[in-house]
Amino acid sequence: MSKTVISHLLQRLKETGITDIFGVPGDYAFPVNDAICNDPELNWIGCCNELNASFAADGYARIKGCSALCTTYGVGELNALGGIAGAYAEHLPIFHIVDMPKHSILEGNNIMHHTLGNGEFDLFHKMVQPVVCASSILTPENSVSEIERLINAALTQKKPVYIGIPADFALMEIGCSKPHPITKQTSDAETLATVIQVIIDKIDNALSPVAVVGTLIGRYDLRSETQQIIEKAGLPFTSMFMGKGTLSESHPNFIGVYCGDLLAEDVCKIVEDSDLVISFGTIRSDINTGAFTIKINPIGEINIHPDHVHVGRATYENVLIQDVITALGKKIKSREIKEKHQIQGLGNPQGAATAEITPESLYPRIEKFFRTGDIIMAETGTASMGLITAKLPNETTFYNQTLWGSIGWATPAAFGAAVAAPDRRVILVTGEGAHQLTVQEISQFGRFGLKPVILCLNNDGYLIERMLCKDPYIYYNDLAQWNYSKLPDAFGMTDWFTTKVVNNQQLDEALDIAANADSGSYIEIVTDKMAASEMALALNRIVLKGKGWKK
Amino acid sequence: MSKTVISHLLQRLKETGITDIFGVPGDYAFPVNDAICNDPELNWIGCCNELNASFAADGYARIKGCSALCTTYGVGELNALGGIAGAYAEHLPIFHIVDMPKHSILEGNNIMHHTLGNGEFDLFHKMVQPVVCASSILTPENSVSEIERLINAALTQKKPVYIGIPADFALMEIGCSKPHPITKQTSDAETLATVIQVIIDKIDNALSPVAVVGTLIGRYDLRSETQQIIEKAGLPFTSMFMGKGTLSESHPNFIGVYCGDLLAEDVCKIVEDSDLVISFGTIRSDINTGAFTIKINPIGEINIHPDHVHVGRATYENVLIQDVITALGKKIKSREIKEKHQIQGLGNPQGAATAEITPESLYPRIEKFFRTGDIIMAETGTASMGLITAKLPNETTFYNQTLWGSIGWATPAAFGAAVAAPDRRVILVTGEGAHQLTVQEISQFGRFGLKPVILCLNNDGYLIERMLCKDPYIYYNDLAQWNYSKLPDAFGMTDWFTTKVVNNQQLDEALDIAANADSGSYIEIVTDKMAASEMALALNRIVLKGKGWKK
Repeated sequence: MSKTVISHLLQRLKETGITDIFGVPGDYAFPVNDAICNDPELNWIGCCNELNASFAADGYARIKGCSALCTTYGVGELNALGGIAGAYAEHLPIFHIVDMPKHSILEGNNIMHHTLGNGEFDLFHKMVQPVVCASSILTPENSVSEIERLINAALTQKKPVYIGIPADFALMEIGCSKPHPITKQTSDAETLATVIQVIIDKIDNALSPVAVVGTLIGRYDLRSETQQIIEKAGLPFTSMFMGKGTLSESHPNFIGVYCGDLLAEDVCKIVEDSDLVISFGTIRSDINTGAFTIKINPIGEINIHPDHVHVGRATYENVLIQDVITALGKKIKSREIKEKHQIQGLGNPQGAATAEITPESLYPRIEKFFRTGDIIMAETGTASMGLITAKLPNETTFYNQTLWGSIGWATPAAFGAAVAAPDRRVILVTGEGAHQLTVQEISQFGRFGLKPVILCLNNDGYLIERMLCKDPYIYYNDLAQWNYSKLPDAFGMTDWFTTKVVNNQQLDEALDIAANADSGSYIEIVTDKMAASEMALALNRIVLKGKGWKK
Repeated sequence: MSKTVISHLLQRLKETGITDIFGVPGDYAFPVNDAICNDPELNWIGCCNELNASFAADGYARIKGCSALCTTYGVGELNALGGIAGAYAEHLPIFHIVDMPKHSILEGNNIMHHTLGNGEFDLFHKMVQPVVCASSILTPENSVSEIERLINAALTQKKPVYIGIPADFALMEIGCSKPHPITKQTSDAETLATVIQVIIDKIDNALSPVAVVGTLIGRYDLRSETQQIIEKAGLPFTSMFMGKGTLSESHPNFIGVYCGDLLAEDVCKIVEDSDLVISFGTIRSDINTGAFTIKINPIGEINIHPDHVHVGRATYENVLIQDVITALGKKIKSREIKEKHQIQGLGNPQGAATAEITPESLYPRIEKFFRTGDIIMAETGTASMGLITAKLPNETTFYNQTLWGSIGWATPAAFGAAVAAPDRRVILVTGEGAHQLTVQEISQFGRFGLKPVILCLNNDGYLIERMLCKDPYIYYNDLAQWNYSKLPDAFGMTDWFTTKVVNNQQLDEALDIAANADSGSYIEIVTDKMAASEMALALNRIVLKGKGWKK
């Protein structure tokens, strides 16, 4: 059977493990939409809008390593841009297929719908450049080579790529069957050998080495390799905010999350008193570093980045993270862990049964609700901050979008994660302000028979903003007042367990029902307007009353 | 009192007539958000998300001539980009205020939240360039001049502008009080005199002149001037799809909407048999021209554009539309209209009381529901097409987003229009597929005490797409199944009149209640999956079975 541009693209995407494509259809997109829907090995996952679809693709990529998104020209692709930028920041390869008018239209100057009306058709492709690591407009002639180049770029750099397809080209036969050879990035063998020896020597000589496991270990799928190094070398390990749950928090070597002055002093003490900190794929962003309050001495640090390693003041270039970690795993010497630190998690839930729900009563209850295998999607803001020191059960993964921090991300990202892992329980924890941005996507859980637990924290406004602005009660932090617990019914999930809870007993009962429900659950949890989690309060002290975000 | 950058900007925006600013707050945005909220002459209109806010600003600008939108850096501005691009295409000046980190952060390379994590801070400002007509990052030194330049560009070109404000600069005193002089675009006096004489001579000598009134007459606020010309010269007039309702459809000279082969032959005949067609600010886009099926002979056409005029094959450059129309109004000779054409509208509603709702029973009922002064926001798709030949009462305005055509626009745009004109009744007519994209914004009607009538046409999928794709029943045209009429209650409007109607009698009763309700009304109108309006069926014949969109 002859191959068309679109059939070849879909074939190659399937070979990366993709089985589902998120998107919103459109008339320029019909040839591509048709091909996806008619492919028995692919599921078309129609979303309510393109931003939501891009966040859903983000959530899916967090679980499966990459994802695909399909939107129409102009209107569709621009609406998805915030999600694509987020995937760029957060190192998630999304194949963004953008369906364009046919090439005779692109080369003309007619005023077509979904354009700016100025006869220019290449503007959107130009606009997207800063937020993708590679892009191409496919033709029958270039598609075989370009598709390989784009897939390689996305999977190597862990960033989104843009794949434009003119509608008529989609259905044309591919012009050649062999791609141009791709120069794949490889490690420099000598530098690799050198740096591995340096790292091993450093660890050998260290008195109190400690590991910091970052987000990129998850993105580069190096979890088990990193865990082996930690176990073999007897390293206590911590994680940063973005990397929470990358390795199991039930592991005996885990010492808790490290976030400078924003979190527990004991973890800071271990890390900052250490004579050797080995950082694995960490991102040193403002929030990840506790508003730049972490104090790791760079002289005593080994920092493994995607394509280079810092050892103290020295930089070793052209060594890929997967090669460094694999080689290290082979060569690292066995060593006993010096001291085990028992982490406590959030402790026992506080608060009388009929008392109102407070951070101290809420987050420990949510921690106890978690179970092995859960996927937890924690929205930016006080909700994810409240859970950051919760101790996760084994094989439980925790996701947040701390660098890009686009509120509203978690709701559709939870949907995307559920599509990627339909056999795992997905728990969405979101503030109601963020939830409002992308709320309609919860309807897709119902449509696709997925059964998440949604915890909507209704604290009457944008609480994290109240923590960071001058006047917490200023009007812009207020929201339209919704009846959140009625949303699932309106969105079509008439069989879900839905409730609104205002005290601890109701919360306990609701969590109990949700834990055993054979349907999706939606619990609106009402707290006081200023019921901020501990880390949010610490951020308030540092950012607002201190020196701001500045390093 | 000394003026700060932000106080000066807000002052100048207020002087353009803006009293409301749409947006979503954010931490980089606090100084600007504070200033807006604390200004007694401005209302902060918090929206559920930034795309919705941009569409609301679009709707407001359609009524008031311009609007302002305020979003935070990165995440906020990118989410609004689709709406800004739409405003560019549709000629709507939106002042997009983007709140940036403080300048010391912008000049550094720290990894801050809401960035791509690569230390680059100017990328988003670069990305937006194609969809704004001017942009600037304000400083205390440049702000007085730059604000004047941006306001002038937006109001002259009727396009959005980008106003970036670093958080610390917002609160600094402006560095100079006098702006640099701006070279304002003016008409060339001699060309203007010449072209006016040519037009007058042409009209004098024409046997059957006819006017086509386009969207831009509304955008340049030239409605009454254009109507005077039409009345004095005794011109029958038509409108195109985008320009429907720009002049009163109850005017005796109105002959109906002109859309080539997509609409009534009698209007085509009058226009295309005419020996002189005078087009006022029309946009010749695909849908506006009935998929390029209009047949106006360019030799016999005068075409008045924003800054030039075509007369037959000749172009007169550097003549501004407002000057041409003003001069024409003064010089045009009186002449009696030759023949009056009575337009019928949609006629009597069809269908038995208990019969299901069909296009023939639905659209005439909606037409009869319209009353003087209504603002009608008609969503892209079969809904706006079904209403295109409805006869509008006097002083009733009708808006669609036909060129950009981003489904979902109408719901928040209707909210923006209601904010702009709280004393007029706003009627939103939307298909349910488009409604899903931006649905949460209906909650803002309730929040701000506005009482629209929302008609949600539930035809079980993206109907306009079923009309245009190969297999109408293909899966991607299906949607999550919502209980639409329960949405207002879930979104907090517990006092609204809400109902779901499935036959004509129920529809009649519901419209009757809505017409007299002292609250908002939300009517879910269920029709068959393939119940397409006549124009949508014609588009199906032309685009799918014919030659496509190509000119």
